[in-house]
Amino acid sequence: MSNPRFLTELEKGTHGLTMRVDRVLAEHVSPYQSITIFENASLGRVMLLDGAVMLTQFHEFTYHEMLVHPALLAHPNPERVLIVGGGDGGTLREVVKHPEVKEAVLCEIDQAVIDLSREHLPFVACGLDSPKATLFVGDGLEYIRNHANEFDVIIVDSTDPKGFAEGLFRAPFYRDVQKALRPDGIFVQQTESPFYTDVDWPQAFKELKVVFTRVHPYAAFIPMYPSGLWTFAICSPTLDPWAKFNPARVAQLEGLRYYSAQMQTAAFVLPKFAQDILDASPEIMSP
Amino acid sequence: MSNPRFLTELEKGTHGLTMRVDRVLAEHVSPYQSITIFENASLGRVMLLDGAVMLTQFHEFTYHEMLVHPALLAHPNPERVLIVGGGDGGTLREVVKHPEVKEAVLCEIDQAVIDLSREHLPFVACGLDSPKATLFVGDGLEYIRNHANEFDVIIVDSTDPKGFAEGLFRAPFYRDVQKALRPDGIFVQQTESPFYTDVDWPQAFKELKVVFTRVHPYAAFIPMYPSGLWTFAICSPTLDPWAKFNPARVAQLEGLRYYSAQMQTAAFVLPKFAQDILDASPEIMSP
Repeated sequence: MSNPRFLTELEKGTHGLTMRVDRVLAEHVSPYQSITIFENASLGRVMLLDGAVMLTQFHEFTYHEMLVHPALLAHPNPERVLIVGGGDGGTLREVVKHPEVKEAVLCEIDQAVIDLSREHLPFVACGLDSPKATLFVGDGLEYIRNHANEFDVIIVDSTDPKGFAEGLFRAPFYRDVQKALRPDGIFVQQTESPFYTDVDWPQAFKELKVVFTRVHPYAAFIPMYPSGLWTFAICSPTLDPWAKFNPARVAQLEGLRYYSAQMQTAAFVLPKFAQDILDASPEIMSP
Repeated sequence: MSNPRFLTELEKGTHGLTMRVDRVLAEHVSPYQSITIFENASLGRVMLLDGAVMLTQFHEFTYHEMLVHPALLAHPNPERVLIVGGGDGGTLREVVKHPEVKEAVLCEIDQAVIDLSREHLPFVACGLDSPKATLFVGDGLEYIRNHANEFDVIIVDSTDPKGFAEGLFRAPFYRDVQKALRPDGIFVQQTESPFYTDVDWPQAFKELKVVFTRVHPYAAFIPMYPSGLWTFAICSPTLDPWAKFNPARVAQLEGLRYYSAQMQTAAFVLPKFAQDILDASPEIMSP
């Protein structure tokens, strides 16, 4: 047997997650990024964008459930939802589980992510085929600037704040997000890890606080991302994650594997060092 | 510059955490295990036992705080504490922070772990020098059999349930633990990860339930362990983790970086798939 090939997503060149590449399914360079999809005997199918793991089949439920459900359940009636990024379809798959959702618009900049997911990642790409889904291939920043007062929930499902995705973590974008939200709208974004040494962790929260009255960080176990401790922020001009929360709606959601009604409170308790980092920035409100 | 050396703790040969070995400090084979200590530019000093990461300087606070504080705060007056394993001293360091603790006995089977930690890992080994600490080098199973009705809290800080540590995860040992506890005693143990594919995750809980009336699993972010999602169990014949919890005692604990009073409830909400695994075993009680 030939030597197995291993792939490591290194932080600072010093440490990171290693996975054995058992079968390469796609190696593609789009106008935006390199896209790699391979198979691993334990983790199933794996997708990387520019060398960073986006999902593994074995773990993706942790991220997609925890990005979507706390925000949608914070809103009393999320009829229209916008997803920026998320071209693999996993976030859509979770959004359309909610019976309140009438339309979910996905705005993905890279057609190749959609196409390769449809070909190789059917367990997430199934979301793209929902009758509630509308796909739009283009720049999320521009899309949001052109749609005022239209969405109950806006979700940013993006790569790290580097390169073309950096603008998705800055106050000018958040101002446009706030305008695109209907009254009592909810915004949610993945906000990296306080243990992840390749990004300046509290920066996104500082920018969010410039725009949103309420910024509520929460955390989840995402083993496929650096350190396994990943954070998110639910933001709103008016709502917090609990005032409109109705646990009876959780029972309607099929196939949950991470999220439960108890998570709507438990996930908002960050490890102390992370909360301390946020508290040390007076411009960031604690929830 | 020569090629850097990397070390990976592989699960099933397919995936795991990789760390760059920047400087080897110790490579020792004791009668019980191989002990490796090295330095990594991002993670600080790292110790492995039989190739499994026990601690990194950067992350060890997550494990040691979450192993110790939920259990000690579940007990109204933890005067006498026994630690089985934990020869590096990190668990002791957290135990002796509690003003209620008068004596903390450490029972470590491997003198070499104590010696090498003292030499290379002073940030945890400082716990070994506490005036409240009594060190005993020997077999924890035998020690516990010979000490009845002596301890308020017993902590098992062990390696995976393989080899010489396997007996620490079985009902006969738990029966001896229960006898070694004083009335209203608390037992806590690290119980591996539901994502970790090298062990049968719910097994320890089944064995615990044979002996203890109350078995309360909880979870913490431990980036240095496989998947980053690690679990623990607080067990008692009489107490749960909340009845005697006094948040004012948390304020007395110095230098906390992970644990907070809010964690005493939040950490007990497991991701749904993990709770479902436990619920599917009728012999395991949900908390």
